[in-house]
Amino acid sequence: MADQVIWLNSALCPATHAGIDPADRGFTLGDGIFETLRIAGGAPRHVALHLARLRQGAAALGLTVPLTDTQFQTAISTLLTANALSDATLRITLTRGTGPRGLLPPANSNPTLLITTAPFIAAAPEISAVICQTTRRNEFSPLSRIKSLNYLDSIIARREAAARGAEDAILLNTKGDAAEASAANLFVLQGATWTTPPVADGALPGILRARLLARNLAREMRITPQNLLTAACVCLGNTLSLRMLTMLDGKQISTDPTAAQALRTVLESPDT
Amino acid sequence: MADQVIWLNSALCPATHAGIDPADRGFTLGDGIFETLRIAGGAPRHVALHLARLRQGAAALGLTVPLTDTQFQTAISTLLTANALSDATLRITLTRGTGPRGLLPPANSNPTLLITTAPFIAAAPEISAVICQTTRRNEFSPLSRIKSLNYLDSIIARREAAARGAEDAILLNTKGDAAEASAANLFVLQGATWTTPPVADGALPGILRARLLARNLAREMRITPQNLLTAACVCLGNTLSLRMLTMLDGKQISTDPTAAQALRTVLESPDT
Repeated sequence: MADQVIWLNSALCPATHAGIDPADRGFTLGDGIFETLRIAGGAPRHVALHLARLRQGAAALGLTVPLTDTQFQTAISTLLTANALSDATLRITLTRGTGPRGLLPPANSNPTLLITTAPFIAAAPEISAVICQTTRRNEFSPLSRIKSLNYLDSIIARREAAARGAEDAILLNTKGDAAEASAANLFVLQGATWTTPPVADGALPGILRARLLARNLAREMRITPQNLLTAACVCLGNTLSLRMLTMLDGKQISTDPTAAQALRTVLESPDT
Repeated sequence: MADQVIWLNSALCPATHAGIDPADRGFTLGDGIFETLRIAGGAPRHVALHLARLRQGAAALGLTVPLTDTQFQTAISTLLTANALSDATLRITLTRGTGPRGLLPPANSNPTLLITTAPFIAAAPEISAVICQTTRRNEFSPLSRIKSLNYLDSIIARREAAARGAEDAILLNTKGDAAEASAANLFVLQGATWTTPPVADGALPGILRARLLARNLAREMRITPQNLLTAACVCLGNTLSLRMLTMLDGKQISTDPTAAQALRTVLESPDT
């Protein structure tokens, strides 16, 4: 990607020239948030929903968002044009910027805004997963509801999945109920109803999840590990993919490709 | 600090010239760990204990530590000499280095090692704290036992403390027992015994904590919020400070300056 261009703070910048200050609190403390957007046909999908979630996370953490929505859209368009991309993923990272030693944010912090693009690689439609045994998702922390830079629990879960020969891991919350996969929401077909763990159970309020709930195509319900094993179908979904689970903890589980396709149709729709 | 020098990967580097790659997983995902050391009389205190904990955290997360202990000591000495420091704090940050999109670490990652210094500022010996209401420490996650870059729960706690007019916050674990302060272990005098929450309750295995346990000056015990209110003395301690709590949730609590001084004497001793 030597010729890639990124957006850093207020302008385009060649990726090879860009450097983050080693004192940036995003780097030293994970003090920041991000969004990942799907770019299709040269335009970002559901950009208003992503920017709204970015602003909610920033408000919860007291981060300053330096651009208006219109300025974000201009930055995104400028970046996509510069990289000649029409089908891609785009990541917006916002951190609190630099600060001296210590946890309490400086009174006048100057945020760091980074927007980067990457090729879109379609995920395989079917995957295997394990129920993560090495860590749990903390439903008591507001971070479970914010797309923050603190992703190590999910990395631990993905490393465990790989070590156990699976492609993803499902994290339980501290009570032992299912919360989400390492980077996707859970959709569990019970009877004729797609269910998904409530945000209060540690599920990130995902954009696809919100769109499915708004269409009454899914509803929130507590989901146990046993529910996963006995469901008619289990899917993992996020902004970039909808994947149907075929194996869980080494056991084949029920699948329903037609029902999964109904979720995928929403994923691929540009409608809010 | 315009003329500060830092250590980046394998050499000294002026701080103003140093930049972290925006694709560094330490920045994008908090995928890394750190240590903070006290420098006194030109030398790092308890460096072997800090490097051992760094290696334990790296092993747990599958991070590569690029230097031997001897090489670390040389890097630290070189950096202290370059910055003409004898009384300071020193931070070692180790990340997984750059990676493409996705949570699973690349097979051959090339770690980023950053060593920085900052002036030592002695903490006030007495402080006020609140019991954090906005987040909990996740004792189910191995991260509670690793000094990782995922510090947002502690930042949330410190922001809450500031909003409530206090200087620090004590985090409970998901069961409601005391785990630690935002960046310090808890030491709670019950009868004639200093107690400290077990690692299994979500306490980071701090270096001062380990030294006090090794001297039989403290022992591990489950600590409830009520225990904090009724203790003979409560101290917050880490590598850089030992602070006695005078107020908790707006209420004056018992103090025992003589007992606290016994802990501070260990803090200030260069002996392991």
